[in-house]
Amino acid sequence: MTYRAPVKDMLFNMQELAGLQTLAEQIPAFADYGPETAQAVLEECAKLNEDVIAPLNVEGDRNPSYWKDGQVFATPGFKEAFRQFAEGGWQGLQHPADFGGQGLPKTIGAACGEMINSANLSFALCPLLTDGAIEALLTAGSEEQKATFIPKLIDGSWTGTMNLTEPQAGSDLALVRTRAEPQGDGTYKIFGTKIFITWGEHDMAENIVHLVLARVAGAPEGVKGISLFIVPKFLLNADGTPGARNDVHCVSIEHKMGIKASPTAVLQFGDHGGAIGTLIGEENRGLEYMFIMMNAARFGVGVQGIAVADRAYQKATQYARDRVQSRPVDGSIKASAPIIHHPDVRRMLMTMRALTEGSRAMAITAAAAYDAAHHHPDPETRQQNQAFYEFMVPLVKGYSTEMSLEVTDLGVQIHGGMGFIEETGAAQYYRDAKILTIYEGTTAIQANDLVGRKTVRDGGQLARAIAGQIEATEGLLAARDSAAAKSVLKRLRAAREAYLEVVDFIVREAKSNPNAAFAGSVPYLMLAGNLVAGWQLARALIVAEDKLAAGEDADFMAAKIATARFYAEHILSRAGAAREAIVEGAESVTALALDAF
Amino acid sequence: MTYRAPVKDMLFNMQELAGLQTLAEQIPAFADYGPETAQAVLEECAKLNEDVIAPLNVEGDRNPSYWKDGQVFATPGFKEAFRQFAEGGWQGLQHPADFGGQGLPKTIGAACGEMINSANLSFALCPLLTDGAIEALLTAGSEEQKATFIPKLIDGSWTGTMNLTEPQAGSDLALVRTRAEPQGDGTYKIFGTKIFITWGEHDMAENIVHLVLARVAGAPEGVKGISLFIVPKFLLNADGTPGARNDVHCVSIEHKMGIKASPTAVLQFGDHGGAIGTLIGEENRGLEYMFIMMNAARFGVGVQGIAVADRAYQKATQYARDRVQSRPVDGSIKASAPIIHHPDVRRMLMTMRALTEGSRAMAITAAAAYDAAHHHPDPETRQQNQAFYEFMVPLVKGYSTEMSLEVTDLGVQIHGGMGFIEETGAAQYYRDAKILTIYEGTTAIQANDLVGRKTVRDGGQLARAIAGQIEATEGLLAARDSAAAKSVLKRLRAAREAYLEVVDFIVREAKSNPNAAFAGSVPYLMLAGNLVAGWQLARALIVAEDKLAAGEDADFMAAKIATARFYAEHILSRAGAAREAIVEGAESVTALALDAF
Repeated sequence: MTYRAPVKDMLFNMQELAGLQTLAEQIPAFADYGPETAQAVLEECAKLNEDVIAPLNVEGDRNPSYWKDGQVFATPGFKEAFRQFAEGGWQGLQHPADFGGQGLPKTIGAACGEMINSANLSFALCPLLTDGAIEALLTAGSEEQKATFIPKLIDGSWTGTMNLTEPQAGSDLALVRTRAEPQGDGTYKIFGTKIFITWGEHDMAENIVHLVLARVAGAPEGVKGISLFIVPKFLLNADGTPGARNDVHCVSIEHKMGIKASPTAVLQFGDHGGAIGTLIGEENRGLEYMFIMMNAARFGVGVQGIAVADRAYQKATQYARDRVQSRPVDGSIKASAPIIHHPDVRRMLMTMRALTEGSRAMAITAAAAYDAAHHHPDPETRQQNQAFYEFMVPLVKGYSTEMSLEVTDLGVQIHGGMGFIEETGAAQYYRDAKILTIYEGTTAIQANDLVGRKTVRDGGQLARAIAGQIEATEGLLAARDSAAAKSVLKRLRAAREAYLEVVDFIVREAKSNPNAAFAGSVPYLMLAGNLVAGWQLARALIVAEDKLAAGEDADFMAAKIATARFYAEHILSRAGAAREAIVEGAESVTALALDAF
Repeated sequence: MTYRAPVKDMLFNMQELAGLQTLAEQIPAFADYGPETAQAVLEECAKLNEDVIAPLNVEGDRNPSYWKDGQVFATPGFKEAFRQFAEGGWQGLQHPADFGGQGLPKTIGAACGEMINSANLSFALCPLLTDGAIEALLTAGSEEQKATFIPKLIDGSWTGTMNLTEPQAGSDLALVRTRAEPQGDGTYKIFGTKIFITWGEHDMAENIVHLVLARVAGAPEGVKGISLFIVPKFLLNADGTPGARNDVHCVSIEHKMGIKASPTAVLQFGDHGGAIGTLIGEENRGLEYMFIMMNAARFGVGVQGIAVADRAYQKATQYARDRVQSRPVDGSIKASAPIIHHPDVRRMLMTMRALTEGSRAMAITAAAAYDAAHHHPDPETRQQNQAFYEFMVPLVKGYSTEMSLEVTDLGVQIHGGMGFIEETGAAQYYRDAKILTIYEGTTAIQANDLVGRKTVRDGGQLARAIAGQIEATEGLLAARDSAAAKSVLKRLRAAREAYLEVVDFIVREAKSNPNAAFAGSVPYLMLAGNLVAGWQLARALIVAEDKLAAGEDADFMAAKIATARFYAEHILSRAGAAREAIVEGAESVTALALDAF
């Protein structure tokens, strides 16, 4: 087996850190989705991903999807696996039962999302984009649009895409030029070129529902003149079945460093008279709707980072157990031994493990906040959780994906020369992971969001409130006697203090000296992500110490304690450098003359 | 032009930091190789690499060398470029005039090495391995062997390889199984399989001189029973010309993530009766000779890290100037602007630049120590420089290659989605660079060398003496008034103090608790490399401030100051986290039970 889903760790996070039981008790819609259901769902999900989807990962890298005469053919085996995925009801996991979904909490959905992405990043992108399309339709679609499209997207008959990027408009959507001409019959004709459209064309479903950003003639300049349209690959007949081919065509797919099985399409709209689209919601509010999709997708991409990191960790661990080279330095074995006995290999594996578990804890607790924000009966609780979740999104996206680069690098490194040979498979994770810090908003875009909307807008209030929650955890650690708790406390406190200093700096400089604030934006994101992940592991340590003392699941709890401590000593300890670079080093970021580069 | 050699920065490093003028004055053999010669050589070298070798880099990635029926064919264009390289005398740059070389100092050679590697890592590996073979022959070969092989290697008629690795023997050469049977006529028959042999088979030269580690029958177990043999692809006729085909055959080449144009061969020795080899030096001293080659090659691989980093920096800078997205946050431009105006892009470019310049300064000063160690008339000066150089080798190799992963990652990141598309070219650097932390000894192997041979063996004496030299530079900084000098001083001092604490820890623990010492080995290497690179940039800052005050080359000097300051504030500042992880976090590295991974 090339992948084993970390069901136990996921359940631990849901139950002990994310309060799944409390969600089930307090939220009527989730009454049936307590820990027992979660376990059953995760185990079922693990089976599909371990047995069916994971084995296709290498195949997708070797035999990527390919383009021929405007059609794109997925890697052999993908279509059948997608059928199994859809028939198992996995696409509808988190979507409303009204449209054929299962209405499960995101707390559980995030874990399932991690599994499918560990199994196969390229494959998982198709459902991930479809989820985004469903979210956008749920939020801004008409009742008719919802009824027409969502059930088909949920049952896997059709899939969804997000069409934002154009050659001149990447991070900067103000530059979108694709245009929409109203036809007087409620439809629009769409003209333009979209690039980087993930799963923008393929043969795994009967229809593809493109959600497309375009400008209606006469719309305002910039982002306030962008509208969102549904442009299906096949127009729908009166009975809702796919009919005539719409005028949207895939003219090529990209040749990429990684996620090769996932076709990245260039889509041409309207070269033969105009692609027919229907407006979602109101004109000129497209970006707003798209942000709903993007926030879901950003969280999803963060989970991809955790997923590829875990897969890389599992592979490296296996290799480190099998590969025999050199004697242990402590003389514990008097012959060449499996390299897992060498301290530096342990350091690398622990770094991979700690980063992965810390990011997972952050994502699952954030998902629980999403659930409470959307479904809790108490409005104030909803609002608090919404604010917390929104603060977490750039951290989950930015930190988890950046850490996945470090983890997949270490994964290759542990394999030595074999890691650089493609047949080994470790290199694929390294190549695949690199897209994660780029798409759905680069790390810098996440950091801008964190600085602007999430920190400066309320004067740093929420950012400081989160530090307050962390301080409360420090109080719990301070009441404990163990060396591990003391060590974690020391680093958690130092990191929180560094973070608070940075928040003050960012809030202070943002208006008067925006270059200084934004020069530190990514280091701030990394510091905040590091802190929150370390905080969740600190919470995990407290639970684990208590359970260990109670004799419950001793091996797992001991491992959790060791991992939390390692995280604090080796990763949380990076916080000081980030603080120094941000607060004391802003000027030197922009000091070099432009001509001198 | 896709690559422009940083001649000016190289000359600055040679003259102002490495003391090239002093070398020329004090070392008779280098009397003609002062700054003027250096400039002429570098400019000539730049031409060849910019015009001929750099354009083949992308070609090599797209049309890698390929294997057919035991033969390997290099990327189209490589053979002709190799002719030009050889005819220009570049292979002999640092080798003795007695054998047709030019006898230039390594101080200059290192800069030329950077250029060819920036131009084309895959191509440059062939001369790099040939250099290693020449070094080994110079050190341990008989007069006849030298006369037979070195002139042909220098004039590019033949090339050289290093045959160490076997499937079961990577980092652990004690496990080498290839055997050598004496034939009674002074030759040996060699039997075995070697893997990962760079340029182990190709069509660019008339002959290939394989240097092969093997065990003579009855030799002691382990590394003390390994001998070194010359096994040419074609046996030599009495007149020294290539004659009969030797029984060494390339059975396949690897399918790699990067450096695809460089064929990585599996070589089979003796499948048809035995490959004929001749012993180099004495039996059972092969590893000792191989280490000579490896030390040269390790330094060379460190330079490869600097080289690929600089190339990635140049490409990213160009893209950042051209790509227009979003308005600057400081309002300085009221429309979408080239992304180089965004602070986070500047932060990324400055990180790339500072890491590259810091590592270059470290390598060139180390090369000057090599020159003094080998050629200075004063024995004590020779000895001191030898010790310093040997300390630097793992830092140049380990730190420069690890930093190249960070730099090439940022290079892709600056390109956004385009970076992930292979046609752009940024991804190639990211894929290519990953081998550098692995071959010629992984970073962990470098770190073992730093801990064991370079630090613990003399009780940390040399490691502390280098800190003493750094402290002297701090004294010079303290005498200055500029904000930049004060800022650099603060971080240099803090990093040196962190380093000293780590040296004490490593020396103290190495015997009693080797797991603790080696758990921190790579972080120690990274801290030491960071410190030395930062120190050299601090020295550069002092020179640059003085020259700037004197009105000399103001733009260059201002840029050097800005880069040195950025390095201190954003990179040297990482030292504290390394100290904490090493000194306070050793236990948690090995705390997790083996079964829990």
